[in-house]
Amino acid sequence: MKLKIYADRRSQPARAVLIFCKVNGIDFEEINIDLTKRQQLSPEFKEINPIGKVPAIVDGRFKLFESHAILSYLACAFPGVADHWYPADLFKRAKIQSVLDWHHLNLRLGALTYVVNTAMAPALGLPLNPRAAAKGEKILFSSLSKIESFWLKGSGRFLVGSNQPSIADLSLVCEIMQLELLDEKDRNRILGPYRKVQRWIENTRNATRPHFDEMHQVLFEFKADLQKQLSMGAINEMESSSKTVYLSKI
Amino acid sequence: MKLKIYADRRSQPARAVLIFCKVNGIDFEEINIDLTKRQQLSPEFKEINPIGKVPAIVDGRFKLFESHAILSYLACAFPGVADHWYPADLFKRAKIQSVLDWHHLNLRLGALTYVVNTAMAPALGLPLNPRAAAKGEKILFSSLSKIESFWLKGSGRFLVGSNQPSIADLSLVCEIMQLELLDEKDRNRILGPYRKVQRWIENTRNATRPHFDEMHQVLFEFKADLQKQLSMGAINEMESSSKTVYLSKI
Repeated sequence: MKLKIYADRRSQPARAVLIFCKVNGIDFEEINIDLTKRQQLSPEFKEINPIGKVPAIVDGRFKLFESHAILSYLACAFPGVADHWYPADLFKRAKIQSVLDWHHLNLRLGALTYVVNTAMAPALGLPLNPRAAAKGEKILFSSLSKIESFWLKGSGRFLVGSNQPSIADLSLVCEIMQLELLDEKDRNRILGPYRKVQRWIENTRNATRPHFDEMHQVLFEFKADLQKQLSMGAINEMESSSKTVYLSKI
Repeated sequence: MKLKIYADRRSQPARAVLIFCKVNGIDFEEINIDLTKRQQLSPEFKEINPIGKVPAIVDGRFKLFESHAILSYLACAFPGVADHWYPADLFKRAKIQSVLDWHHLNLRLGALTYVVNTAMAPALGLPLNPRAAAKGEKILFSSLSKIESFWLKGSGRFLVGSNQPSIADLSLVCEIMQLELLDEKDRNRILGPYRKVQRWIENTRNATRPHFDEMHQVLFEFKADLQKQLSMGAINEMESSSKTVYLSKI
């Protein structure tokens, strides 16, 4: 039975898993779970992942969620995966686990909080929250600085000094790619100071082409949708504020 | 050369690593890094972990931080560790990785945010922040509910249905033990509704005795210090408010 991947390509961890499978020739069926329609909370999907998050996989009778756990499982379960993605060497693997664990409360928390509260919230039925965005931005900048000065230290083209990508590169770069949803000026302001980070994104993209670009296509379409929604929101706000003015004049 | 563990026993991930080593007969030297004196930011410690967090280890020439990465490394590197701590079986290991990954942005984020902003902040030179505490509480309750209804599902005494503890049990239970720093009434309010969680904490404590209690001793001493500081703070506040009243009367 073919591996099933439950994903929304607008979700960064979902894209990391999809790109990994494509690059490594792992045959799979992709089942779209539309986050903007809250399909991750449907009873059908809760049978797959009771926590209600994408990505999730079903491999035969085995169900699994959390993208890092999925990536390391796939790297071990499918014999065709090159060692550099998740090295068997104890020391190399431990370093990759270290950056994967660090990711959650640093780059992931910072980028997710900032992007949701600056661009994505309306599509998820939530209000934009500038105070939360400011907190996210602080964590995001601190995380990018640590990637630039520590995780990308040395001459290797990828994280922890490697010359070939691992599942950590894929996970972290897909997270940063979510910044594409921002206004271009804002994205440049955030990523501009980090030259090594910018090179590393390109190195990861090049190492996983054409699948990297293919899987990110939806993100650019999503950006166009969001900008439309935001400008509609701005018109609605103008209308409602003019209504307020009108009402207050009665 | 003996394994070196850089830790502050008041840090929950540090305790998880220390208990793991004690239970599994791993010989180590413990180097205390006092978080209340900000020793984790000293140049000496930054040589060990440039990110400035405990726990960190040095095993021969190999340096590592992030407690989950350390625990899985130690489980694989030291031959005496029983398999149940980090099973070699691909499916069992993946399930444990799943709960470890889930932990960061759920129980860890919720408990840490709540405990720091309700009890620990003064000891770290920070102000208590009720707004942040409320956010932490919400994530904490949601996480405890998911542990109760999903991660502890079935008849197993430990996470993901196991009958023996894994590194995930140790990590998550040490996090919940941090709630001991709260006022007892508050702790009971939070943990009271979660019967399975309470039994599981006891199961983990029993499976790792006497080391579990030994490593948590410092936490209870820390609680006494914090309560002293908080009551001193209350006196200072009363003094300053009476000063304000006095000044405003001039």
